[in-house]
Amino acid sequence: MMLSGLRTHLTAIGLAALLAGCQATPPVEPRGTGDLGVVVERATGSLAVVDTSERRILTRVEGLGDLSHASVKFSRDARFAFVFGRDGGLSRVDLLSGEITHRVMQSGNSIGGAISQDGSLVAVANYEPGGVKLFDSQTLVEVAEIPATYRDENGEAQRSKVVGLVDAPGNRFVYSLFEAGEIAMIDMNGEAPEVTRFPDIGEAPYDALIGPNGRYYIAGLFGEDGLALLDLWHLEEGVTRILPDYGRGEARLPVYKMPHLEGWSVAGDEAWLPAVGRHEVLVADADDWSLVERIPVHGQPIFVMSRPDERQVWVNFAHPDNDVVQVIDTETREVIRTLSPGEAVLHMEFTPKGEHAWVSARDSDRITVYDTRTFEVLATLDSESPSGIFFTDRAHRIGL
Amino acid sequence: MMLSGLRTHLTAIGLAALLAGCQATPPVEPRGTGDLGVVVERATGSLAVVDTSERRILTRVEGLGDLSHASVKFSRDARFAFVFGRDGGLSRVDLLSGEITHRVMQSGNSIGGAISQDGSLVAVANYEPGGVKLFDSQTLVEVAEIPATYRDENGEAQRSKVVGLVDAPGNRFVYSLFEAGEIAMIDMNGEAPEVTRFPDIGEAPYDALIGPNGRYYIAGLFGEDGLALLDLWHLEEGVTRILPDYGRGEARLPVYKMPHLEGWSVAGDEAWLPAVGRHEVLVADADDWSLVERIPVHGQPIFVMSRPDERQVWVNFAHPDNDVVQVIDTETREVIRTLSPGEAVLHMEFTPKGEHAWVSARDSDRITVYDTRTFEVLATLDSESPSGIFFTDRAHRIGL
Repeated sequence: MMLSGLRTHLTAIGLAALLAGCQATPPVEPRGTGDLGVVVERATGSLAVVDTSERRILTRVEGLGDLSHASVKFSRDARFAFVFGRDGGLSRVDLLSGEITHRVMQSGNSIGGAISQDGSLVAVANYEPGGVKLFDSQTLVEVAEIPATYRDENGEAQRSKVVGLVDAPGNRFVYSLFEAGEIAMIDMNGEAPEVTRFPDIGEAPYDALIGPNGRYYIAGLFGEDGLALLDLWHLEEGVTRILPDYGRGEARLPVYKMPHLEGWSVAGDEAWLPAVGRHEVLVADADDWSLVERIPVHGQPIFVMSRPDERQVWVNFAHPDNDVVQVIDTETREVIRTLSPGEAVLHMEFTPKGEHAWVSARDSDRITVYDTRTFEVLATLDSESPSGIFFTDRAHRIGL
Repeated sequence: MMLSGLRTHLTAIGLAALLAGCQATPPVEPRGTGDLGVVVERATGSLAVVDTSERRILTRVEGLGDLSHASVKFSRDARFAFVFGRDGGLSRVDLLSGEITHRVMQSGNSIGGAISQDGSLVAVANYEPGGVKLFDSQTLVEVAEIPATYRDENGEAQRSKVVGLVDAPGNRFVYSLFEAGEIAMIDMNGEAPEVTRFPDIGEAPYDALIGPNGRYYIAGLFGEDGLALLDLWHLEEGVTRILPDYGRGEARLPVYKMPHLEGWSVAGDEAWLPAVGRHEVLVADADDWSLVERIPVHGQPIFVMSRPDERQVWVNFAHPDNDVVQVIDTETREVIRTLSPGEAVLHMEFTPKGEHAWVSARDSDRITVYDTRTFEVLATLDSESPSGIFFTDRAHRIGL
């Protein structure tokens, strides 16, 4: 019946096509995506897709454009990585097939993005033209654009660079406007995105973070000391200033790089943060934001990252002291280990339960995987100019 | 060449086999596993595999034995569910294919299990014979057995039921011995499992939990008031007693069911817990364990679960008040909503970022999915006697 009908029509070419149909679509191997991750390879514009169980690179995805300072978010199902390139390219990468499923050049210059609480939308923070664009996370079709407009001192309408864009509970996005000195929030629960603005937060917010429970949004200020805090549980209170002594006013050294606020950590009741322009890690009380302690370290800290069990904090440093990672015991507040993963250590990422740390050394073209209990090197992986490392468990964390 | 050679050998049967080869191996569809989960269906001994993005049941896995009071852990890659049956059956289920890949009857009666920090080992807590068994997580081959032996008041060697087994940072497992009144810890970093015992912790520990950062292990006591706390950062301090007024001594009502300690929550600096035998949720200071507040609720609470952003706590109740879920605002500490998901509400689970809550109503054969912001019912799913609900993001959380 169906079979004989089929057979009559089969020619050599038809059979070849049939056989090819069996094999040619490169079979995507089903696997769990909970132990996958990506490493940004900035020199080659590629992503290395990694397996954190086997501690190896599974595949490389090329053609992602300018990945200097690129960041990555993951889809709700932990299958797709959204890559925000510095050149305004937004790419959606299938970690299972190693293919770019969608790619749009969505602006002239972007600095990162976020994925909504429900996973349906990807938001991108743009420098040029300044604003936020929202995309459908399945198709990368543009859904909305929210220009970051403001009036300058002459009353002229201008657009501001957008920085520090994060997702927040309640399907909201929060971000900061560099030139405008504003924090803004997009609420996506109505028919159209609704924007609430908080002006006059301080001069030149350059980066921001949201805490692990999504309540506090904190913006760092490039133009003055202190940090701007928005309590998302109490928008009516507006933006307040915390840690008034935090910033450049204290700098005794030239600032080689402003610390990343995403590199702050909260461990227990304390916030751990990099001092600006000083060889210190600061510990603040996460309730009243008073400064509890200054811990001397090897250089100017960039990322100050808490091991998931909060027993250690790992720190990397700005040029020229960037060939070292230091580990601080959160209880004794002392440096207990200095590691040498290579030249230009740019980023670190812990496995979800914290047993391993992956460290990228850009100028050594190397990723080093450490046992966080023994500090033994478990693996070194070759990677061209590796920078950011992102594991898929971020898909399930607020603001990551 | 190869093609003509192939063609000569093709008969109708051969071709049928070839075509079947394309289609017959039931194609396991590649997909991300980050938005998967399972619902235990106790009456039918089955698991419903669910998709939390589409809010539907993907498939059912049968043949899992007695699933009354069953619990589930996930593999490190979030592909496999380990199901701990009450009948001592341990099953490994592939969420992608919906098949049981391995199954062993490992004891006469078990009460739950855990997966090691590095994902390599599955541990099972057994009632009969009392002890812990360790299995390779890939193959379910038994690796070690640690009997829960102790000497009774007559000096006779006995075996104790094991309860409250959890994973802890540093590739350790911690558990409690019901008859022996002990907490024990297995360290798996050496050649063989090394067991440390903490005797005389109090009478009849019946359940336990470990906090989200893996530092504090807390066992509830059936035989007396208070709780036993082990600080895993300071084993030398031994086990101390906390919340001395917590327990049956306060009971004004018959206790229909001892609350699950896994149903405790930590939100900010506070622990939220079900009172024993009272219609109250208790709030304790998570630093010094003093009681901060008693919140009147609908019945005797069983699970007290914090929404991931810590803005709400959801509570279900013991028989006969078990047709209701109440939502408490963590800031005002007031009940803000009473929901009616059906008869015999046994469990709840939040999606990883907290936008939805899934609630099982055993006697209504129904799972209800709520929007946690609006309390709108987004979906109801048919399920025979659903009880525990577990989503794969637990793979990345300490103690879950």
